[in-house]
Amino acid sequence: MSEVVNKATLAKETTGVLASLTTGQKNEALLVMAEALRREAQAIIAANGEDLERGRLAGTPESMLDRLALDVGRINSIAEGLQQIAVLPDPIGDTLETINRPNGLSIEKIRVPLGVIGIIYEARPNVTVDAAGLCLKTGNAVVLRGGSSALSSNRKIVEVLHTALAQTAVPPGALQLIEDPNRSSVDEMLKLNGLLDVIIPRGGSSLIQNVVLNATVPVIETGAGICHTYLDASARPDMAEQISLNAKAQRPSVCNSMETLLVHRDYAVQYLPSLAESFRTASVELRGCPETVALVPWALPVTAEDYATEYNDYILNVRIVSGLDEALRHIAEFSTKHSECIVTEETEHAARFLQEVDAAAVYHNASTRFTDGFEFGFGAEIGISTQKLHARGPMGLPALTSCKYKIYGSGQIRS
Amino acid sequence: MSEVVNKATLAKETTGVLASLTTGQKNEALLVMAEALRREAQAIIAANGEDLERGRLAGTPESMLDRLALDVGRINSIAEGLQQIAVLPDPIGDTLETINRPNGLSIEKIRVPLGVIGIIYEARPNVTVDAAGLCLKTGNAVVLRGGSSALSSNRKIVEVLHTALAQTAVPPGALQLIEDPNRSSVDEMLKLNGLLDVIIPRGGSSLIQNVVLNATVPVIETGAGICHTYLDASARPDMAEQISLNAKAQRPSVCNSMETLLVHRDYAVQYLPSLAESFRTASVELRGCPETVALVPWALPVTAEDYATEYNDYILNVRIVSGLDEALRHIAEFSTKHSECIVTEETEHAARFLQEVDAAAVYHNASTRFTDGFEFGFGAEIGISTQKLHARGPMGLPALTSCKYKIYGSGQIRS
Repeated sequence: MSEVVNKATLAKETTGVLASLTTGQKNEALLVMAEALRREAQAIIAANGEDLERGRLAGTPESMLDRLALDVGRINSIAEGLQQIAVLPDPIGDTLETINRPNGLSIEKIRVPLGVIGIIYEARPNVTVDAAGLCLKTGNAVVLRGGSSALSSNRKIVEVLHTALAQTAVPPGALQLIEDPNRSSVDEMLKLNGLLDVIIPRGGSSLIQNVVLNATVPVIETGAGICHTYLDASARPDMAEQISLNAKAQRPSVCNSMETLLVHRDYAVQYLPSLAESFRTASVELRGCPETVALVPWALPVTAEDYATEYNDYILNVRIVSGLDEALRHIAEFSTKHSECIVTEETEHAARFLQEVDAAAVYHNASTRFTDGFEFGFGAEIGISTQKLHARGPMGLPALTSCKYKIYGSGQIRS
Repeated sequence: MSEVVNKATLAKETTGVLASLTTGQKNEALLVMAEALRREAQAIIAANGEDLERGRLAGTPESMLDRLALDVGRINSIAEGLQQIAVLPDPIGDTLETINRPNGLSIEKIRVPLGVIGIIYEARPNVTVDAAGLCLKTGNAVVLRGGSSALSSNRKIVEVLHTALAQTAVPPGALQLIEDPNRSSVDEMLKLNGLLDVIIPRGGSSLIQNVVLNATVPVIETGAGICHTYLDASARPDMAEQISLNAKAQRPSVCNSMETLLVHRDYAVQYLPSLAESFRTASVELRGCPETVALVPWALPVTAEDYATEYNDYILNVRIVSGLDEALRHIAEFSTKHSECIVTEETEHAARFLQEVDAAAVYHNASTRFTDGFEFGFGAEIGISTQKLHARGPMGLPALTSCKYKIYGSGQIRS
């Protein structure tokens, strides 16, 4: 039996116990896990040192080493994450619907765990703890497959968490780490129907595309964000500038940041030159349509490929449009259906935009950067779903649950 | 451009209009469609005759020809199905959640259509109309790929519906039929990410498995049901007999019928011989464990493979167990997580069974045959989901919807 099948089987064997744990038992386990991480911080940092050393020898760029690196501060904040999950309401066992049928059948729709969740991710060891905590809180077993560059860190972290769970009501087998660094272990997980109930990829677009295109296990797709902001003719210039600067430059590396600014011609003629200056001050490179370049001579010419690119960087496409209809057409063509915004003072335009744009989150007069589980008040975020099944947009704890119908009868049969 | 890409593109082009239709417009279209089917019944029956003729020449079994055959009565009942969909509440536009954030952002979670739904099915032409009606009511475009043996019928039906829709607010392009009878057109649909938002297979297990194992588009899996009924020691004999006979023999060909009866030893010793007689009277073949065969000498010996078989026929496995724990273990091993039942007078046993069995529908003292959208009071049924993502169990109209967050701001930016 391969490591993947073996560990997924062990995880599945714990699902019955997990589904029946009380909220108190789960929260207690989360706190014990947090405590253990803090206590074993030095051992985890030592293991992390091995990963960093290997990374340096392999010539890994500093920015990636930084994402991999753990210190006491980071471990404390990871432990704090578990404590925050402990105080969130437990969705498991909630009654979602009650149906009383004329034949006397009483039907209750109850929230239950998904079962076994596979998480496939890259080199951030914080995901190991975060995913374990979110899955545990929702009564799910989890099979983790992190990037091989973080293997020593992940192995130590999971060892610490296993020791911690052994003192609690949660079976340690509920948390499994795939250690096989070969790509084949990922491929095996993707086809593990019957043992894994769902796979959630967390990482860059090539990781996500590999999962989406090859998995036979159901997937929750997360990720790609080509987000637009449309400045309507009636947009208030101060608000328009603040929102578009925030959407682009506050943190360009994330999926809810803006890649293309669409500007109504009337607005552009009056305000685009000064808005462009503000972007220049914020170190943002502009790529514009011919009309934009006419107004902002230092902007580079934009290409159709640029409109279809998620830069995650200090680069912004700017296109001048004749009005709402052209903006809607552009968005329909290039949007990845993540987050889209209109800045306008015209209520009717806002209503049309929010109705007609097909995206997880549609904004009137606010930055697309708010598409986030914490900003929505969910208290947690598993990721941002860019598909339409099961969950769409920021996913809180309920995204890690399923449901079940309990039917109470007194001898009813079907005629 | 292939037929599949061409028609899926045409379908997708209608999604904006579809999402904005009023409930009245959609209901009106459903009634116009129903009326057109009745009016054109003879033309549809003539086209159906071509399919039947081809089927007879190809030596298709009578039972399959019967599923394919249309007459005035069947067309009337198909038309009536559309009228029933028209009176159901429209889920689109429902506000699912309202969140007011401390920073003044107001977030509304709204129910929206999925977009374009692909339906892959076999030789029943009623599915063509049914799927079209359910998708239209939920504001979705639909790409239908029916079995080639029903092609003439489906082509005529879709022609009639297109003519009908041309008189309504619904763009006829919202309904597309793939006519290419080759398997390659199915394969192409399965990989049509970006044009299809979801695929729902309807049919036998080989069709469903092909879709599940090869689709990169998200799938809602429907189908397989290896359902169990467990008769506990305290089961009332009259109720136990009625429920188990109903679960097996009222309509054995469907997914919510029972395949294996688990019987507590104490119950079996007293009542199994007479229960077995009732099954014999109902023409049900029994395959029993050794203890069963000792009590019911005419029963055939059961095999492990039998326990894993969905017969959809007048055949029943019978296994005697030592109690609830053994019953739970058997179900965990062989269940397809569709519908499972306990017959008992002990409330605690019922509670444990309903909690611990991992299935879409878990019953206390009622036949598993009730797992059905109409029996649950949903007024419609797209199918019965046997997966845990998005929808589980009988799927009513909400299973054909997604959601979207509308966020209303007044200039908020993220700090």
